[in-house]
Amino acid sequence: MTMLHLNAFLMGVGHHEAAWRLPESDPFAQTDVEHFTRLARIAERGKLDSLFLADSPVLWNSIGRRPGGTLEPTVLLTALAGATDHIGLIATASTTYNEPFNLARRFASLDHISGGRAGWNIVTTAGEQAARNFNLDHLPAHRDRYERAAEFIEVSLKLWDSWDDAAPLGDKDAGRWGDDDLLYPPEHSGRYFRVAGPLNVPRSPQGYPLLVQAGSSEDGKELAARYAEAVFTAQQTLAEGQAFYRDLKRRTAQLGRDPDTIKILPGIVPAIGATEAEARALEDELDRLIKPEYARQQLATTLRVAPEDLDLDKELPADLPSEDEIEGAKSRYTLIVTLARRERLTVRQLIGRLGGGRGHRTFAGTPEQVADAIEEWYRGGAADGFNIMPPVLPSGLETFVDHVVPILQRRGLFRTEYTGATLRDHYRLPRPANQFTRQLAAASR
Amino acid sequence: MTMLHLNAFLMGVGHHEAAWRLPESDPFAQTDVEHFTRLARIAERGKLDSLFLADSPVLWNSIGRRPGGTLEPTVLLTALAGATDHIGLIATASTTYNEPFNLARRFASLDHISGGRAGWNIVTTAGEQAARNFNLDHLPAHRDRYERAAEFIEVSLKLWDSWDDAAPLGDKDAGRWGDDDLLYPPEHSGRYFRVAGPLNVPRSPQGYPLLVQAGSSEDGKELAARYAEAVFTAQQTLAEGQAFYRDLKRRTAQLGRDPDTIKILPGIVPAIGATEAEARALEDELDRLIKPEYARQQLATTLRVAPEDLDLDKELPADLPSEDEIEGAKSRYTLIVTLARRERLTVRQLIGRLGGGRGHRTFAGTPEQVADAIEEWYRGGAADGFNIMPPVLPSGLETFVDHVVPILQRRGLFRTEYTGATLRDHYRLPRPANQFTRQLAAASR
Repeated sequence: MTMLHLNAFLMGVGHHEAAWRLPESDPFAQTDVEHFTRLARIAERGKLDSLFLADSPVLWNSIGRRPGGTLEPTVLLTALAGATDHIGLIATASTTYNEPFNLARRFASLDHISGGRAGWNIVTTAGEQAARNFNLDHLPAHRDRYERAAEFIEVSLKLWDSWDDAAPLGDKDAGRWGDDDLLYPPEHSGRYFRVAGPLNVPRSPQGYPLLVQAGSSEDGKELAARYAEAVFTAQQTLAEGQAFYRDLKRRTAQLGRDPDTIKILPGIVPAIGATEAEARALEDELDRLIKPEYARQQLATTLRVAPEDLDLDKELPADLPSEDEIEGAKSRYTLIVTLARRERLTVRQLIGRLGGGRGHRTFAGTPEQVADAIEEWYRGGAADGFNIMPPVLPSGLETFVDHVVPILQRRGLFRTEYTGATLRDHYRLPRPANQFTRQLAAASR
Repeated sequence: MTMLHLNAFLMGVGHHEAAWRLPESDPFAQTDVEHFTRLARIAERGKLDSLFLADSPVLWNSIGRRPGGTLEPTVLLTALAGATDHIGLIATASTTYNEPFNLARRFASLDHISGGRAGWNIVTTAGEQAARNFNLDHLPAHRDRYERAAEFIEVSLKLWDSWDDAAPLGDKDAGRWGDDDLLYPPEHSGRYFRVAGPLNVPRSPQGYPLLVQAGSSEDGKELAARYAEAVFTAQQTLAEGQAFYRDLKRRTAQLGRDPDTIKILPGIVPAIGATEAEARALEDELDRLIKPEYARQQLATTLRVAPEDLDLDKELPADLPSEDEIEGAKSRYTLIVTLARRERLTVRQLIGRLGGGRGHRTFAGTPEQVADAIEEWYRGGAADGFNIMPPVLPSGLETFVDHVVPILQRRGLFRTEYTGATLRDHYRLPRPANQFTRQLAAASR
């Protein structure tokens, strides 16, 4: 039987925006490497496939509201590589605000340093403010960002394959370190990039990092179907999760890829208690600590309305823009509006739900109930695994690992030991062949 | 009495280009984090101020000739931060092929992760090939690269100062994590960059990384005098070293800076033996392992002549271009030509000298003689310390740390214990004040 996959999505002292206000939380943990080292070791103790750090090259929000400023993920993951032995390490990096040569090199370096445990969550970065940190006045159009992303990935794949696995020889006697004929400089020339290459890092243990994608817009799903090996997604109901899963597997198959080579991991924000009442009490305590004025401001920005148009004790206004008019994070916009309309939430209730998981599925219950919820989606064809987003860190991850993982293991749904060495091994994906080596072999047949 | 400073310049299995061919060398060490971890721990055992990784976003040379491909330095140094407790960590990064927001963030992250041990060697990156990895057909002009570098540094300084040290509050009771009024978004708009900010990392332990510079062209010296706190330089003779030292200290003073706040560190490639004969034998063994055909090709490229114009057994041709005509690494060009002419070296001899230290001063002798050479330059006003470039690694660093450092310590020239926590502490430099905090304080007086 195949097993499900589990990723630990690490974010400061937790995914709930008020987590930092709990007595147990260190409010300055988001820049403390020891905090992340501890989290990584807990996740590895639970035999999780991977851990993940989100990112955007911009200060997210008011620092009044919640902890601001985060360590750059490729750098932080390198520190975590040294503190762990098995767990995969996935970092978000933007195709809109990086150069392929530099980013491909950092991920190749991380893959070498971690012994083949690197993964790249490919994002195009929404938001006007990020654009203004990179010589632009406005965010490039959604379609342009995705076209650039596709070319960025193509260039990166060429750079990672620009060294044959057999290029390094180390022949001391002949004084010949490598075979220059086994370098394949891409000499890429496209709409967004011209990159000669080759990369200045030999091909890495995994060939290249696991490719991960997280946007669920039309453009995002097309990119995922083409390139992604794992997908993070926010789905609120089993039916929605099933529809997304079927759609993405179908798109992947239509492109001639084996649909098993793309792993779909919906997010879940589990508030776990010894009893259901205890779990709900934790959720309530966190929601009470949210300051609604900040959250209303952010919601208004996302919805493109004035903050004063959002009455905390009423539902959302009826006349909101359609997704087509949004150039930012399209799928996130639709998810928020759909959630609010379906459950007829007041703005205050919506803020509570978003503060808990930013649109991801929140779930309060006992370890048994959390395991049931995971198993239901997994067996129901809505997930190949889950993106675990503890509301409070480290305690929420510790509880998940110590109390939910053993249940999943007893049910035969999750590994009890690591059996492979690399991140792709954990996700049961093959090491990719070198595209140039393959072309040369085909040409010589 | 002040003491001298020592930096360990780490490069694969050594600075001598044939080091990888020695029986003791692992030819694949340049991508092995364990190798660098071992080197970092040796350097720290010797109480060295810092270690340093050079870099260029391009594959340097034929991989036939010598080991090719290196791990990206900010990532590798992060791994070394976790393996050490005291030593400073300096990485080269290019102002020509990076964006200030991304690079400033990575260095701030490294400074947080290492507890204030980060340093940035600022380079503008010579070479046509690097340009072709970044959407360009040709290397930008030397002057343009240096103007961009100056603006890049200004933007970076603003970003690092965009958080007041007092901005994070962590006030759980009031639900106020930070003070938004103590963020200072640069809103920089210049010739090369428009960057809104603020940075998305709180101000780091050192405020910002130690600023290091290594180019010795006119433009390079001007940049160093304005911004650098440490300078790596290649000087062949005591007289040249003294002239460079006086010149750079004078330029620094002329800009209103205390000349003690710029530390000048000439490179030295020490071949160390129990006897002088043993040291020379090591040098000879290494030189014999050089394959001159590769080296002649590279020398020809640097000198802008055809390889066949360089007769291995004759001196350099008389009609070489002047430094003004060189748009690449100007000071390196002049250094090579001056060295060859002064010592009337044949091309083969020049290749041996360059293969050993790429234009840096090579020195073969006993530990006592190496210590004498260091003391002579230090007391003679040619150096505040040295950039140690072992021809073979790890053995050359180990010998230096175990046999030369104790002599320098006995002479009272070098620390016997670390007395400070940060890289600036080691170089006896103050933590920089925040420019915006200072401006506000001045305005309110």
